[in-house]
Amino acid sequence: MNRTLREHAEQIIRGSIAAVQPDAAVQRALAGRTFPGRVVLVAAGKAAWQMAKAALDVLGERIDSGVVVTKYGHVMGELPGVTCYEAGHPVPDENSFRGTEAALRLVEGLSPRDTVLFLLSGGGSALFEKPLLPAAQLQDITAQLLECGADIVEINTIRKRLSGVKGGRFAQLCAPAQVEAVVLSDILGDPLDMIASGPACADSATADDARRIAEKYALRLSPAARELLAVETPKQLHNVHTQINGSVRELCAAAAAVCHRLGYAPCVLTDRLCCQAREAGSMLASVALTHADDGCDLAFIAGGETVVRLTGHGKGGRNQELVLAAAQGIRGLSRVAVFSVGSDGTDGPTDAAGGYADGDTCDTLLAQGVRIDDVLRENDAYHALGKADGLLFTGPTGTNVNDVAVVLIRAK
Amino acid sequence: MNRTLREHAEQIIRGSIAAVQPDAAVQRALAGRTFPGRVVLVAAGKAAWQMAKAALDVLGERIDSGVVVTKYGHVMGELPGVTCYEAGHPVPDENSFRGTEAALRLVEGLSPRDTVLFLLSGGGSALFEKPLLPAAQLQDITAQLLECGADIVEINTIRKRLSGVKGGRFAQLCAPAQVEAVVLSDILGDPLDMIASGPACADSATADDARRIAEKYALRLSPAARELLAVETPKQLHNVHTQINGSVRELCAAAAAVCHRLGYAPCVLTDRLCCQAREAGSMLASVALTHADDGCDLAFIAGGETVVRLTGHGKGGRNQELVLAAAQGIRGLSRVAVFSVGSDGTDGPTDAAGGYADGDTCDTLLAQGVRIDDVLRENDAYHALGKADGLLFTGPTGTNVNDVAVVLIRAK
Repeated sequence: MNRTLREHAEQIIRGSIAAVQPDAAVQRALAGRTFPGRVVLVAAGKAAWQMAKAALDVLGERIDSGVVVTKYGHVMGELPGVTCYEAGHPVPDENSFRGTEAALRLVEGLSPRDTVLFLLSGGGSALFEKPLLPAAQLQDITAQLLECGADIVEINTIRKRLSGVKGGRFAQLCAPAQVEAVVLSDILGDPLDMIASGPACADSATADDARRIAEKYALRLSPAARELLAVETPKQLHNVHTQINGSVRELCAAAAAVCHRLGYAPCVLTDRLCCQAREAGSMLASVALTHADDGCDLAFIAGGETVVRLTGHGKGGRNQELVLAAAQGIRGLSRVAVFSVGSDGTDGPTDAAGGYADGDTCDTLLAQGVRIDDVLRENDAYHALGKADGLLFTGPTGTNVNDVAVVLIRAK
Repeated sequence: MNRTLREHAEQIIRGSIAAVQPDAAVQRALAGRTFPGRVVLVAAGKAAWQMAKAALDVLGERIDSGVVVTKYGHVMGELPGVTCYEAGHPVPDENSFRGTEAALRLVEGLSPRDTVLFLLSGGGSALFEKPLLPAAQLQDITAQLLECGADIVEINTIRKRLSGVKGGRFAQLCAPAQVEAVVLSDILGDPLDMIASGPACADSATADDARRIAEKYALRLSPAARELLAVETPKQLHNVHTQINGSVRELCAAAAAVCHRLGYAPCVLTDRLCCQAREAGSMLASVALTHADDGCDLAFIAGGETVVRLTGHGKGGRNQELVLAAAQGIRGLSRVAVFSVGSDGTDGPTDAAGGYADGDTCDTLLAQGVRIDDVLRENDAYHALGKADGLLFTGPTGTNVNDVAVVLIRAK
């Protein structure tokens, strides 16, 4: 194993994950900002508590009051002036609705000089919700849409209309106050209308679209549901300013910055990787093979979230599988490494954050009778990487902005 | 459809395939070269006739005499002073052996001042062969190796010793004359010992290696075969100079050059692409999504040879499948296109060389009721691309150096 490359990998992982911590994202977003009137805080999502704490650290007593709605077990302590709710995820429960109601009471009666600091992170869709129909009806409509093969855009067009806060309605309820939204994105491409179903994002779909979808799939709807579909969602929101301040794009940019500090010329290939894990590994190895003799230290970075095709019953995760597939391709290249980690510190149902391989990995495994082809067929990357000192551990990181994979090439 | 991008795609394809024509490769290799003594020509492989003709065009009467061994139907006319053989491929036949014998007679008795101009292209392994064992024995040994799971390196170590011309032995027989080898590579990474099993390439494996492999797999061998395995292949060849002058690397470089002329900043991601076609398409689309708004005209180039995973019974090829998968990812991007072609002008069992898609392709197909997911499941890219004006035709190109895929991004 190449110890320099391995040590660099650890540094790049630490540096890039640190840059996309919820508190770092909030600090960057609020740095130097001043607010004329009252500031109330509404934080929803799995990172809501950390984001709220970071906002309090920056703004202190400028924050008048606040509500946090996060997942069970995610409140880490009391926050002065802020009421914290723990609630159901991925399925919303009564606590989700209670926390959301508390947030709506908080933003009532504000003036145009006042600000709602809205801190949104993954999981917000379930945690921040005010249903406009009984739960059974909502479930039935979702089930019908899934059964008839409606696409995600069609499903969202319908569902936003059945919620009191989604599709921009939360921001509408905040008016005339200003909404300062800080978003930590766990969806590739940062589609603001998809993250938590866009509580502070104008909805581009119209009531007409919703009606057409209902007709196209002959949805069975109660009279109440029909009425809701006919109510327009906000098409423009003049009181919202949004900063996406933690996302896989920044994870990649931060990885590139650390690579640069370590002397590598970095190139972000993509921050939208979504293909099969092992094929992404093969492709990154192809890139390494082509550029291994370019004569300079290079880093190729690919962020996103690959998928694993299950063909066996082993233990692993998408990052580990990507790396193990890449290990085959870079076999024998003494100055090349590939590693990949989940920014949340978890890769699949394992205790590892991801994996590391270099030009020696394949032969280290072969010497122990382990053939990578067999391992991939069994989806057993965890045990194989364990035998080649190729598992990477970070512990829970407190953030979740997808994965980052890196190819490192040293000239000498 | 974006007509500018489509027109640029056609220009890039024409320009890059022209650069890897066998005659262009030979012309580049021979430009300005002089030879002190006699020059004899030996050309083997599917492009042998074109390469020999190009050499005659450049060197004219400097070529004393020559032998061409190529595939049936591949001799396009008489060449002065050159005897042409058509022979079996991929299975060698008597004509392969006859042509090879003629070549061996030609290189006998040359002086150190003389030159053997050795022009090698894909298919040479079957077309250029002098078996040292009866055909039935050779077949039996190959079958045993395949059955017991020997890898390609092990198989070649054994097989080179059973041939009178492979593993550097042809070059050895040419000594004391100089061998000037010009190679057109159809194998990714241009492994000289693999292209036609390396008639002019020193063999790194030893007789000891061969013995160990025979023991490891308990090969059943005749006494004659055992004796052959014990004979050493040449470990160093001081009379050989090799130029790989047509390969996917040059196909990519030529594509990059045309892109540059058209105003795109080109980046060759890899010339070793070997993953699944549709996953490569997904990954190239991810690259496009990430860089679509960089604000400059960009071209990302990936050469190699992908594989198609068969899940249906439609019609298509790896290039068409790659492009169709990419079409999903770049949907709606008005200034982005992805295209991919086989340099031989054939993509799978179709009359197309490959495919083209841009940001409109997905919706053009949806408007006709065609869902790309369904098409990919049926491996039916040919018919789908046909409905979106996305098939690319070149006709047979006379060369074969794998495929090239390109992502084009225009800033405006």
